[in-house]
Amino acid sequence: MSLSPLLDDLVDALRCLPGVGQKSAQRMAFHLLERGRDGAGILADTLARSLVEIGRCDSCQTFTEAPVCAICRDERRDSSLLCVVESPADLVAIEQSGDFHGHYFVLLGHLSPIDGIGPADIGIPRLLKRVTDNGVQELILATNPTVEGEATAHYIADRLLVQGVSITRLANGLPVGGDLGGADGSTLSHAFRGRRPLSG
Amino acid sequence: MSLSPLLDDLVDALRCLPGVGQKSAQRMAFHLLERGRDGAGILADTLARSLVEIGRCDSCQTFTEAPVCAICRDERRDSSLLCVVESPADLVAIEQSGDFHGHYFVLLGHLSPIDGIGPADIGIPRLLKRVTDNGVQELILATNPTVEGEATAHYIADRLLVQGVSITRLANGLPVGGDLGGADGSTLSHAFRGRRPLSG
Repeated sequence: MSLSPLLDDLVDALRCLPGVGQKSAQRMAFHLLERGRDGAGILADTLARSLVEIGRCDSCQTFTEAPVCAICRDERRDSSLLCVVESPADLVAIEQSGDFHGHYFVLLGHLSPIDGIGPADIGIPRLLKRVTDNGVQELILATNPTVEGEATAHYIADRLLVQGVSITRLANGLPVGGDLGGADGSTLSHAFRGRRPLSG
Repeated sequence: MSLSPLLDDLVDALRCLPGVGQKSAQRMAFHLLERGRDGAGILADTLARSLVEIGRCDSCQTFTEAPVCAICRDERRDSSLLCVVESPADLVAIEQSGDFHGHYFVLLGHLSPIDGIGPADIGIPRLLKRVTDNGVQELILATNPTVEGEATAHYIADRLLVQGVSITRLANGLPVGGDLGGADGSTLSHAFRGRRPLSG
C-alpha cells in the first residue's frame, strides 16, 4: 500500500537521476524529508532555475547561462588551438588537468547512425565553419577512445584534410597510476606502439 | 575555472542527496541538462511541493500529506497490534513484506544520549499515551538490531511493564538467502539460541 501519493511521486521523480533505482530513490526521498529539508529546498530551487537559465554557448556549445561562455570570452587563451570533445563533462575534466589553454568545441555527443544521429545533430557543420573562420591551426580531436568516438574523429578529420589544419588525437596508453595487469589488450598494444625513449 | 556559476550551484545542491559526492553530483547535473530536462523539471516541482505538503501523521508520525496517514485511517487493520519502528523507511519495508496487519508508530530515530536525543525528541511520551489510550494488546518493538535500537526498545519496554501489554521484539538470526560463512558471530549465536524443531 502507498504511504502517500506525493511521496511516491517524489520517489519516481528522483529516478530521473543517473544510476538511481527504486531503492536509492526511496532512500533519497526519506533522507531529504527527514534530515535534509534545507538542502532539498535549495536543490528544488536551483534545479528549476538551471533548467530555465542554462543553455548552450553560441560559440562552443558548452553549458552556460551567458550567450557566450567564459572560456570563449577569455582573450588570454590561444585561439589557434581548438579541442573537440563529446560533452561538457569532458571539457571540465580537461580544464581540471590545467594543461590546455586553447579553446573548445563541444559536440552534442557522437555520431551514431544506428540511432539516427548524423553530423548536423551534433553540430559538426558549425565546428567546420568555426575552424575555417577563426584561423584554427591545430584541431585536437579529443572524442572518447571508443568505436563511436573514433568514428566521429575520423569523420571530422576527413572533412578538414584539404584545409591545411593540423589534426591531432590524444595519446592512448596506460592510465597513470593504473595497473598493467588490469589493462585490456587493446590499451596495452597502443601503449607498446606508442612507447617512448626514457630521457635521462 | 568555472564553466558557469549556476552550474556550480546545481552541483553543490545535488550533494545534499545521500551518497552523492562531488563527482556524482557533476555527472547528475550534466545528465539532467543534457538528456533529462523533462525529468528534472518534474523533480524540481515535485520536490518543492513535497517539502511544503508532506508532514508527519498526527497519529503514528510517519510521512503523509494528510493529517492522518492511510494506514492509521484503515479500519480493517488490527488496532490491538502496534509495531514501533525507527523510521518511515522501516515501515515501508515491513509493509512490503505483507505480513503485518496492525498499526505502526514511527519514532523519529532512536535514543542517543551522546547526541542529546532523549525520549521526548523521538516521540516516546506520545507512543506511551497511544498504547494506554487505544487498547493496544501487543507492542512489537521493531527498532533496529543495533546497540541504539536495543537500548531504545528496552527503554520503552521498561516504561510499559506494569500496564499488562504484551511486548515483543523481532527475531534475530540468519537472513533468508544469506550465507552462513558470511554471518557475524553475534548473528550466529542468536541463530543458535533461537533454533527451532524442523516440522516434518
